[in-house]
Amino acid sequence: MNKEIIKRRIKTIRYRLTKEKISFFIVTKPANVSYTTGFSGDDSWTVITKSRVYLLTDSRYTEQAQKECPNCMIIERTGPMAEEAAKLVKKLKSVRTITVEESTSLANSKRLKKVVKARFKSAAKIIESVRSIKDNSEISAIKTAASIATKALRQTLRHVKAGITENELAGMFDFQIRRLGAISSFDTIVAFGPNASRPHHQPGTRKLKKRDTILIDFGAKYKGYCSDITRCFAIGKPSTLYQKVYDVVQAAQVAALKTVKASAKIAEVDAAAREVISKSSLPVYGHGSGHGIGLEIHELPLLAPKSKGRLESGQVITIEPAIYMPGKLGVRIEDDILVTKSGYEVLTRNCPRSFLLSTRQR
Amino acid sequence: MNKEIIKRRIKTIRYRLTKEKISFFIVTKPANVSYTTGFSGDDSWTVITKSRVYLLTDSRYTEQAQKECPNCMIIERTGPMAEEAAKLVKKLKSVRTITVEESTSLANSKRLKKVVKARFKSAAKIIESVRSIKDNSEISAIKTAASIATKALRQTLRHVKAGITENELAGMFDFQIRRLGAISSFDTIVAFGPNASRPHHQPGTRKLKKRDTILIDFGAKYKGYCSDITRCFAIGKPSTLYQKVYDVVQAAQVAALKTVKASAKIAEVDAAAREVISKSSLPVYGHGSGHGIGLEIHELPLLAPKSKGRLESGQVITIEPAIYMPGKLGVRIEDDILVTKSGYEVLTRNCPRSFLLSTRQR
Repeated sequence: MNKEIIKRRIKTIRYRLTKEKISFFIVTKPANVSYTTGFSGDDSWTVITKSRVYLLTDSRYTEQAQKECPNCMIIERTGPMAEEAAKLVKKLKSVRTITVEESTSLANSKRLKKVVKARFKSAAKIIESVRSIKDNSEISAIKTAASIATKALRQTLRHVKAGITENELAGMFDFQIRRLGAISSFDTIVAFGPNASRPHHQPGTRKLKKRDTILIDFGAKYKGYCSDITRCFAIGKPSTLYQKVYDVVQAAQVAALKTVKASAKIAEVDAAAREVISKSSLPVYGHGSGHGIGLEIHELPLLAPKSKGRLESGQVITIEPAIYMPGKLGVRIEDDILVTKSGYEVLTRNCPRSFLLSTRQR
Repeated sequence: MNKEIIKRRIKTIRYRLTKEKISFFIVTKPANVSYTTGFSGDDSWTVITKSRVYLLTDSRYTEQAQKECPNCMIIERTGPMAEEAAKLVKKLKSVRTITVEESTSLANSKRLKKVVKARFKSAAKIIESVRSIKDNSEISAIKTAASIATKALRQTLRHVKAGITENELAGMFDFQIRRLGAISSFDTIVAFGPNASRPHHQPGTRKLKKRDTILIDFGAKYKGYCSDITRCFAIGKPSTLYQKVYDVVQAAQVAALKTVKASAKIAEVDAAAREVISKSSLPVYGHGSGHGIGLEIHELPLLAPKSKGRLESGQVITIEPAIYMPGKLGVRIEDDILVTKSGYEVLTRNCPRSFLLSTRQR
């Protein structure tokens, strides 16, 4: 990981920590440990003080950490993590209070309270909110993750034919993603026909008919960064209802996109999509209209009716309106969007979106 | 999920709760929520009282929960989870203390403390330790998960030929697993040649040579239950060193297995495997000799030098000794073992273990 990039991240985080009077910050969430150090291993914590960044890891990872984390003091722990933190507190002498992330488990905070001789407090989402604004290296990794997912989809679509099961199609996608040097960023969802009305349908043995519909929700994880895309296709002429629903979902996505730019109210972006659907007297989806993506598949900001705050330049979000009609159909269209000062950039613009899929005879 | 099975689980858990004077237990860990209710969805909590089991979920899951959880009172929450728990406490009147799992985050426990009018405490690994003893339905699911992984491996091995990359082979395995109606229970590891010396190697673009070695660490997740297997193969005649190392690892596994039965000291099972390796003057692995498997890929018990306690009948564990020689080779052999009163049953006995792989010309 580039030394300058991590340096800038730490600078931004320290600014936040100083504001909240935090001088010894223990980072336990894996994605936040990666973000603050460049480390790609497991079972490690970061400690951020006013002058140093420490990575607490173990012998399995020392060599890897030395290579990946030039900005860090690497501490190879021999005992439990909490005791290693206690030793560090003792060594630094001036530490009066330690602060942990609110995502830390009660078990870990109990252990820390027991062995560390300092006051104890917790802080919410400091690194998560810094992470929501992506730097250029992150945007570039997400772009590659989107382009790998797109390539894998194109190759997967070649295998679409009547008789193939949801399981087989999902497996084919996972295979292509691996061939392209990435892994799936979550369990690939493939839903045929009415199965698509369940937002988190688990692929099964349902076979594709000659005239049918496909929903596929998929993504790649590349250099730690996720893409997240949903596409819907019709095989043969779709029903009038399906065609109508598809057009409305697409219009909802366009309406939401029109509102996207730095400083737009998040709740208004969400509302723009929902309004198009409710005006068509079709059922409005129960989930959010989108979410941040990055090191995790769900990050800040969440785009939902009750969301507060405004979009910021450099955020990468999904926009994914949908219509679900149980027993009948489900349509969701999801793209990955970079928020810019004046508007947005669609990072998934090359991903096939032609609604009618031509299937070749085999 | 069978009503009687859940009933028995809850009975065992209540016995433990009574012993620890817990009368209102909030379960937040997803695998524990599934275990106590049969629910396969997300974002839900279980509450166990002396007379009832409640599932706190939301509108996305109400229908699914009613089908999957006949033993539960389903509460469809409209607001935040903690507030729903507070409402329940208020409704039940007699609740003086609420207890959460120690794996709960500080964020969730803060929210609970804020809104629930009762004392607050936490308890460690109550459900995890009950879960470590598998009932027949669980053993049967793990057996199927092992058999699916085995089938997928056999089909994957047909594609082994010089020139294939680690990524392609890992992808091929993931595809086969999907075709068989399961998903991979973790990110499949494929390591060729010296890459196998890193226990958590991430598959890459390394191509298989005509004379080479393969380590594959793989598993299936079926009906929520995981299998976890590692096999090593040689393509063409392996080096004398590799052959020797392989034999020692195999002997280490046999030695550990000989000690496995209910009431065996866990540290002694771990030591049996390590001893064989250290006596051969080969480097002993840094990780545990095994771990429980079930709803999670790593469960209790952990088989490590410092482990306390004894094996119990009904536990399903991996035994996975290894030898890692950086820059040279890595060999690990891992099987899934049911602990019985008098010994053990190898659930992965049908999984190919012939060391020399014949590759067909294609």
